[in-house]
Amino acid sequence: MERLPGFRDFYPDPVPSGDALAWSASLRDYIHRTWRRVARRYGFVEYDGPPLEPLELYKIKSGEEIVQQLYHFVDKGEREVALRPEMTPTLARMVAAQARQYKKPLKWFAIPQLFRYERQQKGRLREHFQFNADIVGEADPAADAEVIALLVDTLRAFGFGPADVVVRVSSRQAWQEFYRQQVPASAADPAREYAFYQAIDKLERVPREETERKLAELGISWDKVEAFLRTSPPTAELHAVMENLRTRGLDGFVAIDYRVIRGLAYYTGIVFEAFDRQGQFRAIAGGGRYDHLIRLISGGRVDLPALGFGMGDVVLAELIRARGLAPAAPARVQVFCLVEDASLQAPTVRLVQQLRDADLEVDHPLGPEKPDKQFKRARDAGVRFVVQLVRDESGTVRAQVRDLQTRATWTCAESEVLARLREAMTRPLELGSGEGSS
Amino acid sequence: MERLPGFRDFYPDPVPSGDALAWSASLRDYIHRTWRRVARRYGFVEYDGPPLEPLELYKIKSGEEIVQQLYHFVDKGEREVALRPEMTPTLARMVAAQARQYKKPLKWFAIPQLFRYERQQKGRLREHFQFNADIVGEADPAADAEVIALLVDTLRAFGFGPADVVVRVSSRQAWQEFYRQQVPASAADPAREYAFYQAIDKLERVPREETERKLAELGISWDKVEAFLRTSPPTAELHAVMENLRTRGLDGFVAIDYRVIRGLAYYTGIVFEAFDRQGQFRAIAGGGRYDHLIRLISGGRVDLPALGFGMGDVVLAELIRARGLAPAAPARVQVFCLVEDASLQAPTVRLVQQLRDADLEVDHPLGPEKPDKQFKRARDAGVRFVVQLVRDESGTVRAQVRDLQTRATWTCAESEVLARLREAMTRPLELGSGEGSS
Repeated sequence: MERLPGFRDFYPDPVPSGDALAWSASLRDYIHRTWRRVARRYGFVEYDGPPLEPLELYKIKSGEEIVQQLYHFVDKGEREVALRPEMTPTLARMVAAQARQYKKPLKWFAIPQLFRYERQQKGRLREHFQFNADIVGEADPAADAEVIALLVDTLRAFGFGPADVVVRVSSRQAWQEFYRQQVPASAADPAREYAFYQAIDKLERVPREETERKLAELGISWDKVEAFLRTSPPTAELHAVMENLRTRGLDGFVAIDYRVIRGLAYYTGIVFEAFDRQGQFRAIAGGGRYDHLIRLISGGRVDLPALGFGMGDVVLAELIRARGLAPAAPARVQVFCLVEDASLQAPTVRLVQQLRDADLEVDHPLGPEKPDKQFKRARDAGVRFVVQLVRDESGTVRAQVRDLQTRATWTCAESEVLARLREAMTRPLELGSGEGSS
Repeated sequence: MERLPGFRDFYPDPVPSGDALAWSASLRDYIHRTWRRVARRYGFVEYDGPPLEPLELYKIKSGEEIVQQLYHFVDKGEREVALRPEMTPTLARMVAAQARQYKKPLKWFAIPQLFRYERQQKGRLREHFQFNADIVGEADPAADAEVIALLVDTLRAFGFGPADVVVRVSSRQAWQEFYRQQVPASAADPAREYAFYQAIDKLERVPREETERKLAELGISWDKVEAFLRTSPPTAELHAVMENLRTRGLDGFVAIDYRVIRGLAYYTGIVFEAFDRQGQFRAIAGGGRYDHLIRLISGGRVDLPALGFGMGDVVLAELIRARGLAPAAPARVQVFCLVEDASLQAPTVRLVQQLRDADLEVDHPLGPEKPDKQFKRARDAGVRFVVQLVRDESGTVRAQVRDLQTRATWTCAESEVLARLREAMTRPLELGSGEGSS
């Protein structure tokens, strides 16, 4: 029985090698915790929706063509449903349903798992987790700057500096104005306009001739596009956003770059994408302003400006690993309680319970096992403390404790173990090392 | 555009009323964090698999009948796939694929979202999150006790005491032996045996006559079942498990109760279910030993004893709320920086960045807003500190800080704000209160 192609299993450490889709559960946890921590630092609050939504939700937003890329089916109640391929439609649906409930602007984030039936390629998965952060109900460019700053600080939290990553910022609106100047009003047609954005979006990924041909079909010359790319000044919005980011000291992480336009149809203002500076990887994150989407999804009932970004975990994890920034596998437990003398099994279980009640992470052997095997198990679990109950000459049960980090060892009453472990944990390591038995 | 029936949206606080399936994202976070914390205390490590699996994985384990309850479909690659209805088959698949990689016993946990196409009923959802904890590769009853202790301590971590909840422990093996005594070998038939377990499982939920009729069809008298329920002594395994739990001081939370048998076919030994003592709710959790499942899923390649439990979030959250144990909604941020003087907007943004860089949770207005509205926003966010930059008579920019908890206020240089906030946060509250401005 095999896993479906393009899906990942998340394994405990040490992660099995030889299966590219056997990923590290602890790395996933690190990424999700970091996303949550930075989002909360910015005052964003978490939300989530169902992984299964009405298919119509995606058709409304992206048209029939999206259906080809979805996991969709008809459920037992004859509903057309789809596994969510992105989070923004769910966000728009949730906000539209409860718009009056919350004071604007909303600052919401989510970490959904998303699904696309993509053709199998190296590094192209059919699911990923995506950090989504959006501000709803604020038209001021300060909101755009806040969202881009969150994106930059998220990358910084993983250890990336301005030499590693850059957020390229652009304006869909500027491109829209350019397009409307080039094309006479009589030829205005949303499908052709969207085809133009798609052509610009693919500029860096397809041969120049192909772009020129596509542009010519739309009645636009490459020279005009090239001049716009090279000479167009920042819009007032872009200027305000860049000033704000400079005030925050984050300008080393951002650059105006009109080559960015974003493929999706619904963006209306500032758009941006984050890349590694070496250009080894696909975009790490992307987003922008979509001021009309909530009106569209709510059938005109709710109209709120909005913007946000999504950052997937696949490219991010690749970049984290490529730059050597993955944290070491965490210790499985802090304390391991050995059992050598079978008559001390019950008191050991009692001690284990006592330590766990104090919120220490503790393990112990569940079946009979030789002490050296137990000790190896303790080491493999990354524990700092090994505890063993022993009987002294008078028959009294005492606890022997070894601190594997400082190499200190001591013997104490069973009732004192917790207090002594707590003390050793809070003591600075330099002072603790070399301590003899007491 | 509406959410699919039986699915939940998780909203930020304050959660909208009037929609029973609009749940609290912060309560979900609290439940998941508590599950993770207690699992780690016991040395369990996290894993996860895909929410979409081959349909065959569930048919192998549960037969064709399971298909009626699943969300399943044929994907674009002509594969029969299903949204996972439970986690154990995925665990068995993952362990079977990498059995040699890890030292046994494995102690693994997961928090998957699971899906069932159930008939719509009050309180019956079509998805839930489930805490799964399993030990693989240990046949000793100490493993059963460890898993039940984890279940009890998870309930304790939510604030439930022995008067609130009970884990009813039983033995599928004892029932199997009873069945085989009652039914002549010539009538042995797995389907009839399974029908017997189902009849016992439903004992408390259907009228007596119905059970008697079903038993009679299987050639078993109600009197014999009733005598077994009343007089059967604990098996040696049950005895060992109860002794172990007594040693841990957890015996107030457990009771031997042969009425528990678990509906699923694959259990082989100790089985158990957790209930609220008042009997108001469905089972909070259930589990047991399934020593043959990994062999079955791996096609005989890997044979490891295993056991575990699942605890869903729906009944648990209902019980948490019914007992008044839900935590207060957390503060959205710790600090709010007001802006009154537009010329101080940029320095405020700089201060916000400085505080966030120090991992404080900070918010500030993104657009122009009256100071009293900003202050109300700060209060709504549950902040403790309100900071405002002001110009003194000499034109120097200073920071005014209000501690809404202690009512202390003070003025300091912008560069001192972080240190002063840190100091106030670590100072015990009693000492801080009543402090005047300085």
